[in-house]
Amino acid sequence: MTLIDGKSVANERLNNLSKTITSLKEQGKRAPGLAVVLVGEDPASQTYVASKIKQSKKVGIESKSIVLKEDTSEFELIEIIKSLNNDEAIDGILVQLPLPRHINSEKIIDSINPNKDVDGLHVHNVGRLVQNKEAFIPCTPLGIMSLLEAYEIDLEGKDVLVIGRSQLVGNPVTTLLKHKNATVTQAHSKTKNIEEKILNHEIIVVATGVKAMVKADMLRDYHIVIDVGIHRENGKLCGDVEKSAYEKVKMITPVPKGVGPMTIVSLLENTVKAYYLKGDNHG
Amino acid sequence: MTLIDGKSVANERLNNLSKTITSLKEQGKRAPGLAVVLVGEDPASQTYVASKIKQSKKVGIESKSIVLKEDTSEFELIEIIKSLNNDEAIDGILVQLPLPRHINSEKIIDSINPNKDVDGLHVHNVGRLVQNKEAFIPCTPLGIMSLLEAYEIDLEGKDVLVIGRSQLVGNPVTTLLKHKNATVTQAHSKTKNIEEKILNHEIIVVATGVKAMVKADMLRDYHIVIDVGIHRENGKLCGDVEKSAYEKVKMITPVPKGVGPMTIVSLLENTVKAYYLKGDNHG
Repeated sequence: MTLIDGKSVANERLNNLSKTITSLKEQGKRAPGLAVVLVGEDPASQTYVASKIKQSKKVGIESKSIVLKEDTSEFELIEIIKSLNNDEAIDGILVQLPLPRHINSEKIIDSINPNKDVDGLHVHNVGRLVQNKEAFIPCTPLGIMSLLEAYEIDLEGKDVLVIGRSQLVGNPVTTLLKHKNATVTQAHSKTKNIEEKILNHEIIVVATGVKAMVKADMLRDYHIVIDVGIHRENGKLCGDVEKSAYEKVKMITPVPKGVGPMTIVSLLENTVKAYYLKGDNHG
Repeated sequence: MTLIDGKSVANERLNNLSKTITSLKEQGKRAPGLAVVLVGEDPASQTYVASKIKQSKKVGIESKSIVLKEDTSEFELIEIIKSLNNDEAIDGILVQLPLPRHINSEKIIDSINPNKDVDGLHVHNVGRLVQNKEAFIPCTPLGIMSLLEAYEIDLEGKDVLVIGRSQLVGNPVTTLLKHKNATVTQAHSKTKNIEEKILNHEIIVVATGVKAMVKADMLRDYHIVIDVGIHRENGKLCGDVEKSAYEKVKMITPVPKGVGPMTIVSLLENTVKAYYLKGDNHG
């Protein structure tokens, strides 16, 4: 059994980002800039935003968080995004979700310049991903693909089961795997005979948001499992796959230190990609 | 065995469109308008455009074809589309594909107002379909869904195999079937063990563009088959499924008179949808 070490792959990629940005600065160019917008005081969101800012600063990205009051209006929020769209020092804009209920998230996300949409949720990027064109890809699916690549897991002609159909993970990862010539079956809460389907697939991506939804006895020694879930249990983190399954399978991303660390790396990589896309960074 | 009678479902829907438009006119409102743009003199394209115009006129849509010379520039074509975008009498705009090589099709399609994009190929509509939001859906996949509905074929929890991953059919039909709670496996040219996969699925959508790719001996009496192919053989039309398979399966869309007639109906339905979306049709 191999534990797929997301932490170590993430660290390697963070080092590469650091080097790239250091070299840009040495050439007298400006550093990439990331703006993270948070509306309200949800503690989980505050933690995520703080972590994104901290990690981005570590690699040399000029990041800032814009923290707005819970009762910020949709109009005010759009005005702020417009000013970030026009801000030459900002390459990436991320609006932390969920937004307060009185704000239409779709409208907000589609107000971001698609070329600064480092979360890959703008309709334009969603469409371009399906069309297999250059696009910003949501961070978790992008991180999963980087992990599969780092472990040289061949996807061509492979039967892959994706469990989950969220816009953040299930749908984009299905599309990405298909672009890599895998044959993908996308399962979800209405799927029948999920245990049989798991047995019939070699690679399983689990993104259900249901704690320990995939049990140890559903898995075999030929399975490569990507566990996207993240839950808290007795103060410890666990995923959508039972921990006792780890020793049964061929390879698995553990929780923590599997997919999790890759998500933030992808965000920073997307920010650097947006920087180069802008192409006005001449010192 | 049941032959799914696309011709008759299409006729019924054409009648409904006729009635809707007649009633609009009786109320003194303008009829929906469709513009079909053709660049060059490809004989197949000419036939398709002529047929779209003829059918749309039959139901009362004010349609016009705009035929441009082969050497029309990208700039000129975009100018024409812009004027159609601004034309109050035009609800739907369709650019017949393929375009001559010197024109970037993507750029042209994305220059259409997404609310007039009755072919459902604009990146905005592609993205919205994935997001399960109101969108214009490409005509053939939309026609397939209408056929499945007309024959009351239940999709919830069903295992469906889609063979093909084109932007026109394979990808959007996969997404539509998933939205209907089917568990969809999308196969393609790199898929392994396709015969086994066919046996393991009850509903098969074949959109490969390869004549008689699915053989009679791959199918069983429990199969419901949607054949999207259209090829010419000795002056007769045939599909992606061998004709000798028809008598073996539970249900199948024949070629001709299966999916084919539904495509044009969907185009006209999309045009009427665009008309109502515009909401400025007050006599």
